Amino acid sequence: MAGGERIAGIVMAFELKNLSEEMLMNLTLRPKIDFSKTMDLVKPIISEVQSRGDDAVRELTLKFDKVELDEVVVNPRELEEPLLEDSVRKAFDVAYDNIHKFHSAQVRETLSVSTMEGIECRRVPRPIERVGIYVPGGTAVLPSTALMLGVPAQLAGCTEVVLATPPRADGSVCPEVLYAALKCGVTKILKAGGAQAITAMAFGTETCPKVDKICGPGNQFVTGAKMILQNSGEASLAIDMPAGPSEQLCIADASSKPAFVVSDLLSQAEHGVDSQVVCVALKGFDEKVFAEELEAQVSALPRKEIVKEALSKSLFLRVDSIDEAIRFTNLYAPEHLVIPVDEPEAYVDKIVNAGSVFLGHYTPESVGDYASGTNHSLPTYGYARMYGGVSLDTFVKYITIQKLTPTGIRNVGPHVETMASVEQLHAHKNAVTIRLKEVNNQS
Amino acid sequence: MAGGERIAGIVMAFELKNLSEEMLMNLTLRPKIDFSKTMDLVKPIISEVQSRGDDAVRELTLKFDKVELDEVVVNPRELEEPLLEDSVRKAFDVAYDNIHKFHSAQVRETLSVSTMEGIECRRVPRPIERVGIYVPGGTAVLPSTALMLGVPAQLAGCTEVVLATPPRADGSVCPEVLYAALKCGVTKILKAGGAQAITAMAFGTETCPKVDKICGPGNQFVTGAKMILQNSGEASLAIDMPAGPSEQLCIADASSKPAFVVSDLLSQAEHGVDSQVVCVALKGFDEKVFAEELEAQVSALPRKEIVKEALSKSLFLRVDSIDEAIRFTNLYAPEHLVIPVDEPEAYVDKIVNAGSVFLGHYTPESVGDYASGTNHSLPTYGYARMYGGVSLDTFVKYITIQKLTPTGIRNVGPHVETMASVEQLHAHKNAVTIRLKEVNNQS
Repeated sequence: MAGGERIAGIVMAFELKNLSEEMLMNLTLRPKIDFSKTMDLVKPIISEVQSRGDDAVRELTLKFDKVELDEVVVNPRELEEPLLEDSVRKAFDVAYDNIHKFHSAQVRETLSVSTMEGIECRRVPRPIERVGIYVPGGTAVLPSTALMLGVPAQLAGCTEVVLATPPRADGSVCPEVLYAALKCGVTKILKAGGAQAITAMAFGTETCPKVDKICGPGNQFVTGAKMILQNSGEASLAIDMPAGPSEQLCIADASSKPAFVVSDLLSQAEHGVDSQVVCVALKGFDEKVFAEELEAQVSALPRKEIVKEALSKSLFLRVDSIDEAIRFTNLYAPEHLVIPVDEPEAYVDKIVNAGSVFLGHYTPESVGDYASGTNHSLPTYGYARMYGGVSLDTFVKYITIQKLTPTGIRNVGPHVETMASVEQLHAHKNAVTIRLKEVNNQS
Repeated sequence: MAGGERIAGIVMAFELKNLSEEMLMNLTLRPKIDFSKTMDLVKPIISEVQSRGDDAVRELTLKFDKVELDEVVVNPRELEEPLLEDSVRKAFDVAYDNIHKFHSAQVRETLSVSTMEGIECRRVPRPIERVGIYVPGGTAVLPSTALMLGVPAQLAGCTEVVLATPPRADGSVCPEVLYAALKCGVTKILKAGGAQAITAMAFGTETCPKVDKICGPGNQFVTGAKMILQNSGEASLAIDMPAGPSEQLCIADASSKPAFVVSDLLSQAEHGVDSQVVCVALKGFDEKVFAEELEAQVSALPRKEIVKEALSKSLFLRVDSIDEAIRFTNLYAPEHLVIPVDEPEAYVDKIVNAGSVFLGHYTPESVGDYASGTNHSLPTYGYARMYGGVSLDTFVKYITIQKLTPTGIRNVGPHVETMASVEQLHAHKNAVTIRLKEVNNQS
């Protein structure tokens, strides 16, 4: 990436119009991740848990998490009620309500269409009955993810919801995760993490129910196991989407407040050294103040070393127009797209590829990460080109239904016979012919 | 599967209530498919096409399809207009119209919800811009699949739609497929099949555009390539769903006409020797006439040997009640569920796992395969537990958007700060704090 100079000694800056098309395309690519080593580590874990069930989960939890498990799977309603500070309880209640409100608006009624006289076609939603939701834990605790996955599963009407999360050092479940699980009606908690948790849910064990779909973010072992098992006919498992490091693209203009922009970029960068951060700046954005804020805000953070390393690989792109900004954005397809400007609606219709979008000066990414109501399980690594984030539909499938009257088969039957003849499927044709004969005799 | 006797010397029959729970569960399983050999054959094809592009596609098409290609990719609008018989053209027009009508009813408008005062959350549909649709060809011609995938892609507004299909012996595109492609606004036709076609679309070649999602059924090589490539970060590809042999479950009762039931089962069985056919019969279904019809209809079919072999592995289950029938059906999760009875609506609310359902005496599976309006690209192999068939949503993703006013950040901000503190994400908290300070100073 020659030609870039650094802002505040950290962020690499480019003029977009000076870049060749090839260089621009390169900037939209994420760093390559070589999954082959992870897969080699994950495969033996999968076969251990598949063949030995709970015993293997216990052994692997001792080995990786240094926790000796009493029970591998617990019923959250049988655990002691979690003690939370009032402010924490209230915060989770507000987040639950907002997520619930936004996701319940996604419920779809049965669709019914008459395509021809005598032909009714319907599309009806049905819950995916048994689902697994993965909530990362261990060093960091991420109870917000329990809400983000638990609420839509609850709204969809899933009958078995297994929440997998690594246990705390004493073998217990993180109280905030438990609180969220209870609110969402989670039926079982699997006290395990990593590939062992994914495998236990995919195949089922003595105490862990087999689930049909597993959702949620996780480290490379979680992702590796989900990838391997979604291709296993034996496991018969669906997953939500591929996962990669988290990322944010921020579009700033003359109206943007550099301090806000910096705070958003840093909230992304603190996720880890592999976080991707891109700032696309239109003419008039105050780079000088931006550089000052960057230095000041970074140095005030406890995790400044992580943040600095993430930022050193991040981009600052100067553009001349909204169209130039949007073109790069759609090519990059960011997980989070933050647009802290006076007139953000000018961008909305042009955005094609993004996970979740944050409009205006008072909409930091953090509000969507926790409590605005949208989901924080979002497509990364460019997959926003073809995946949306987790939604109610993640836990639902749609069945089609058709019903023909004698008039219906009279109207469409002859055309079906013709098409079946073209495809040389005689029995397909015959199933229509035998009915047409009857209805034509009756009339 | 001891204990079963054969009907008409072909179909294996059981009383469901006499089966142990274990045996019943075994009957819901599909035959194991060992994909490892397929994968070993597919991997070198993928690397050939990835590294050598069109040249590799040309060589592999000569090797596997015995066709020497002039152009690998063609623009359908630049080909000679296909000459079809009037009846065939009319049949495809009717099918197109019905599929179009049912799928356009699936279009969703932007959803907008105010979750709290000052917080607006939206969910907006956007097309997956570049898609590939696979239409099987070679010995059998399946132009109906071009409509089933092409219509929803067109309605979704995909800007690049590459249709891959094996060429005919003279290197040309099957005229019915070309006709469907033109109606659906397909932008490119890739004259190739198998893993080479999937790889060309996944990575792009000199003449074939790279696509972001590939949909459509295919043989084991097509499926194997889709499975490998959906796990490749380098390919960055989504697929519609896993694929297995086609299957049908038919529920019959005293009101069912055995000749119709047999015609439906045979239309499934003619797909190939690995087709799965299950008949669940309630009390009063006329088994004697069923057996007679079975013998008569099978012997009248040109592909009777294939049909007989498929039927020899199929099931006839006698049940005592609708609930018993439905329980087995939901455990089996059939791709096609045919219910040719007087009162089929009694079943509908109880169906949880099925791909597409056919209600009443005049709704053979064939109408859905071709022209009722529903999609025939459906989940098989038990995947109807968690996948629906191809729909408009297959070619769309949903982006979430949020926008907060100063009141909005005042309402939710403190809760976000609390949750970020629980998760020890200081920069996440800071992005809110810095804004709260400003709005609180202003007020």
